[in-house]
Amino acid sequence: MKAVVWHGKRDVRVEDAPDPVIREPTDAVIRVTSSGLCGSDLHLYEVLTPFMTPGDILGHEPMGIVEEVGPEVTHIAPGDRVVVPFQIACGHCHMCGTGLPTQCETTQVTAEGMGAQLFGYTRLYGAVPGGQAEYLRVPQAQFGPIKVDHGPADDRFVYLSDVLPTAWQAVRYADVPRGGTLAVLGLGPIGDMACRIALAQGAGRVFGVDLVPERLERARARGVETYDLRAFDKQKDLVAALQDETGGRGPDAVIDAVGTEAHGGAAARLAQQAVGVLPRSLGAPLTERFGVDRLAALYTAVELVRRGGTISLSGVYGGAADPMPLLTLFDKQVQLRMGQANVRRWSDEILPYLTDEDPLGVDDFATHRVPLADAPGAYEMFQKKRDGAVKVLMKP
Amino acid sequence: MKAVVWHGKRDVRVEDAPDPVIREPTDAVIRVTSSGLCGSDLHLYEVLTPFMTPGDILGHEPMGIVEEVGPEVTHIAPGDRVVVPFQIACGHCHMCGTGLPTQCETTQVTAEGMGAQLFGYTRLYGAVPGGQAEYLRVPQAQFGPIKVDHGPADDRFVYLSDVLPTAWQAVRYADVPRGGTLAVLGLGPIGDMACRIALAQGAGRVFGVDLVPERLERARARGVETYDLRAFDKQKDLVAALQDETGGRGPDAVIDAVGTEAHGGAAARLAQQAVGVLPRSLGAPLTERFGVDRLAALYTAVELVRRGGTISLSGVYGGAADPMPLLTLFDKQVQLRMGQANVRRWSDEILPYLTDEDPLGVDDFATHRVPLADAPGAYEMFQKKRDGAVKVLMKP
Repeated sequence: MKAVVWHGKRDVRVEDAPDPVIREPTDAVIRVTSSGLCGSDLHLYEVLTPFMTPGDILGHEPMGIVEEVGPEVTHIAPGDRVVVPFQIACGHCHMCGTGLPTQCETTQVTAEGMGAQLFGYTRLYGAVPGGQAEYLRVPQAQFGPIKVDHGPADDRFVYLSDVLPTAWQAVRYADVPRGGTLAVLGLGPIGDMACRIALAQGAGRVFGVDLVPERLERARARGVETYDLRAFDKQKDLVAALQDETGGRGPDAVIDAVGTEAHGGAAARLAQQAVGVLPRSLGAPLTERFGVDRLAALYTAVELVRRGGTISLSGVYGGAADPMPLLTLFDKQVQLRMGQANVRRWSDEILPYLTDEDPLGVDDFATHRVPLADAPGAYEMFQKKRDGAVKVLMKP
Repeated sequence: MKAVVWHGKRDVRVEDAPDPVIREPTDAVIRVTSSGLCGSDLHLYEVLTPFMTPGDILGHEPMGIVEEVGPEVTHIAPGDRVVVPFQIACGHCHMCGTGLPTQCETTQVTAEGMGAQLFGYTRLYGAVPGGQAEYLRVPQAQFGPIKVDHGPADDRFVYLSDVLPTAWQAVRYADVPRGGTLAVLGLGPIGDMACRIALAQGAGRVFGVDLVPERLERARARGVETYDLRAFDKQKDLVAALQDETGGRGPDAVIDAVGTEAHGGAAARLAQQAVGVLPRSLGAPLTERFGVDRLAALYTAVELVRRGGTISLSGVYGGAADPMPLLTLFDKQVQLRMGQANVRRWSDEILPYLTDEDPLGVDDFATHRVPLADAPGAYEMFQKKRDGAVKVLMKP
């Protein structure tokens, strides 16, 4: 089969790979019909290269048609249409039982001290071959795959693999009171979808912050009050602008959806503005030594959120010793909630939104649909945010 | 009147001060009958001296008898017995209305960028004269004071001012599932009381960690499974011991109740053990430069808590750029919840526990009851943990 294979920094190729086969009684094999390109794939493309091995197959946002199932897989059958969650979880361990399949104890990568295995995501997460391929072996298929209707285009359902539950969990963790206010930092696919979900679930006002014109425009068109970072010289000016809209308090919750992949874009801009938050003498060296740019959105969130509010972090985040303003967090009584999305924890709540009325706008959410063969160009386009790329789907 | 007055580092004196009077229609004046000495008073004694002014009256855990009320104070009257919350809040602003009186918008110290005013707690919190005195002016008395029955000794009720709601909020924020497990780091008054509350509210097992023999013994006597830090060479040994008791997972929640005042004690011991958590090259200089000792308990909590669990921080905490292991927090999907206790948010839930049956053991919670005149010696004894001092009440 053809698959998107990692070879090195900014070097992905479409190559022949062995067709996957059933190895365990809990496996399934699916023929992939659509596979998303995720911001976190860009980590592998650029940053996390030490944890990759040339030949690794990428991708963790697949859907398709079941080809074959092992004897212990009973909720799906060949011919069924399924979306495959980005995480691999058993559904019956203690952690899965408490709604935390990202912490599945059956697939936890204990050798690396990490949580559940993920498709196509470094040896830290099990080096499991990913879904940007013609076929995919799905381990623990007795639990993961979500059966969906035949009929609508793949766009209707494919985001159940990652974008929808990630944005959904970010909104649930943000815990905005009904009619309350939410700021979303970063309007990439997760931030954009989080805005849509928050509005659909009754948030009073949603403020979206970014600096890419087409991302701001997409959000504005769906009722988000957008703030263009380029219009603010300093972090405190942005904070002041949002306080003006929220009775001087700041929003009830802030979702940090900038992500670590947004290098050179919103993250860098926020970093530039945020250095002033740190103690003066530490500002400059910290920027260099700890990579403050990854944390700039989080610092902005700390300043922005109202007292007693919640910061919800979505997307892979941070390092081993990130400088954090604990005194401010404590004095403001802020809650920090984070973690990778527990897909099956939320998927049944999300499915009723995936209808012909399309309240979340999934049917035209993708900006680009490209053949799998064009993956190398798609990665480059997405990284450089060229051609208005917000969300790219690949079709094997 | 006599009052405990701050003069400088480790220099508190009992001196004459002007009798307080009603200044605002929302004031009350009470005659203080008991006043607690709090771990956070030791910050003022030792660390926060730049924010103090010689002559400041200390203390924020008072109770007593109402002497006089302003015309807008109607829920209490002269002769009533009241406990005064450590924070000063109006009860009718937006923040008080959402159950966050520590963020009261009427008393917020906006000039310093801080939350609600506190009694006797630096100019950061309004430089309001405190309750370690014969008399106390209580601002915003239309909301704060909690009326209690005459009859039982002050010990029955005095902890409503701070210890009880602080421990209560720590437990509520920890959100231990019924029958679940909780580790409490630090068995000073807050940690000790948090253990008692967690057990009273249905936690399955509570593990208490400290290194002061009499504190361990107090907790053990009330059903806490205690761990003596002195028995562990390294943080990971303590973590392993608690994992062994929790199916290899770690406890559902961890309360960090070590507090910043515990210098030279549990905090230093945890710091020594925790340095290994940081990236090797950063360990040593960070210890010196950022004061890792203040954060050691928090690092231990991060390692200790089960995946998907909650860390609840009680007590004033941290600085402007504390190194935090965000990658681990994110991968483990940990919630961080913190902030000063919202006394009146919890006081009505706590009152039913303050009965003759004394389920929380408040009647003999104090280890020392001393005359106000002995305050200087009491501060010194408490700081040095001499004579088994866990909780000291002063009697004007």
